[in-house]
Amino acid sequence: MTKTTLRDGERVLDLGPPGDAELRFIGRIRTPFATRADCPRQGREDGPDCALELLPELAPALDGLAEGFARADVLYWLDRSRRDLVHQSPKSDGRVTGTFALRSPVRPNPIGLSRVRIVRREGHVLIVRGLDCIDGTPLLDIKPEACSFSPQAPLKAADER
Amino acid sequence: MTKTTLRDGERVLDLGPPGDAELRFIGRIRTPFATRADCPRQGREDGPDCALELLPELAPALDGLAEGFARADVLYWLDRSRRDLVHQSPKSDGRVTGTFALRSPVRPNPIGLSRVRIVRREGHVLIVRGLDCIDGTPLLDIKPEACSFSPQAPLKAADER
Repeated sequence: MTKTTLRDGERVLDLGPPGDAELRFIGRIRTPFATRADCPRQGREDGPDCALELLPELAPALDGLAEGFARADVLYWLDRSRRDLVHQSPKSDGRVTGTFALRSPVRPNPIGLSRVRIVRREGHVLIVRGLDCIDGTPLLDIKPEACSFSPQAPLKAADER
Repeated sequence: MTKTTLRDGERVLDLGPPGDAELRFIGRIRTPFATRADCPRQGREDGPDCALELLPELAPALDGLAEGFARADVLYWLDRSRRDLVHQSPKSDGRVTGTFALRSPVRPNPIGLSRVRIVRREGHVLIVRGLDCIDGTPLLDIKPEACSFSPQAPLKAADER
């Protein structure tokens, strides 16, 4: 965790070490953004192509994604972020906002989430647009978009209540 | 991890133990769904009220969320899911789909993601609608919705490319 300097009004909370559950990196994200300063604040669908490079053995887990969906939710690990701020001051003006009212990378579990447009699949690599993270960011998950999503499993009684 | 029976055509991959990064549970989700059979396949905005019960010391991190946003992305940990399937057969009919083309809880990192409607805040508890998870599910993160999101931080050169 990078301990950046606190801005006026920001508030730290010591929650103790994490360790409730463990993540496995399933690959890396390749973007044209080499440093944090290069990253846009938000990814855009007309932004550059980025590559979700899965571990090669996970390639079959992509079957059906690019064929069936135009967009996906991508989860990744913001491994350079501090995790102990409850109040943050994004504008450095002393005005503070709760961490859960921001999409800042600084949060107790620094999981990034971007909705991306799927461009194409190349084996174990998925080319997408709409990311804003640094090159080499660890990849956690890819989910087909929920908006246009129809569950493939049969309906259950609980769905019809 | 629960080792459920495999369906026809489903494919397992041994990725070895996780351990690339550690999560901290920030609270629990209270839903009316006591068992998996009670859970709907997908949450709906006209579904029942559910409660995101944060650790009390994290209450300040909610400041500004219910006041500023109608919806949020909720991340949670599906702690009963197996993590080793690359091909799944949701309809149990032998037809398989890659894990990343499904929103099934079974995935290498069983992180659930739901877009919810914010109903109200009560101290360290956020009342929302649109969840489909079991009562007691560990909570990982809450992010304001991205659709209507305008970054609070100043624009950077990289945003204007």
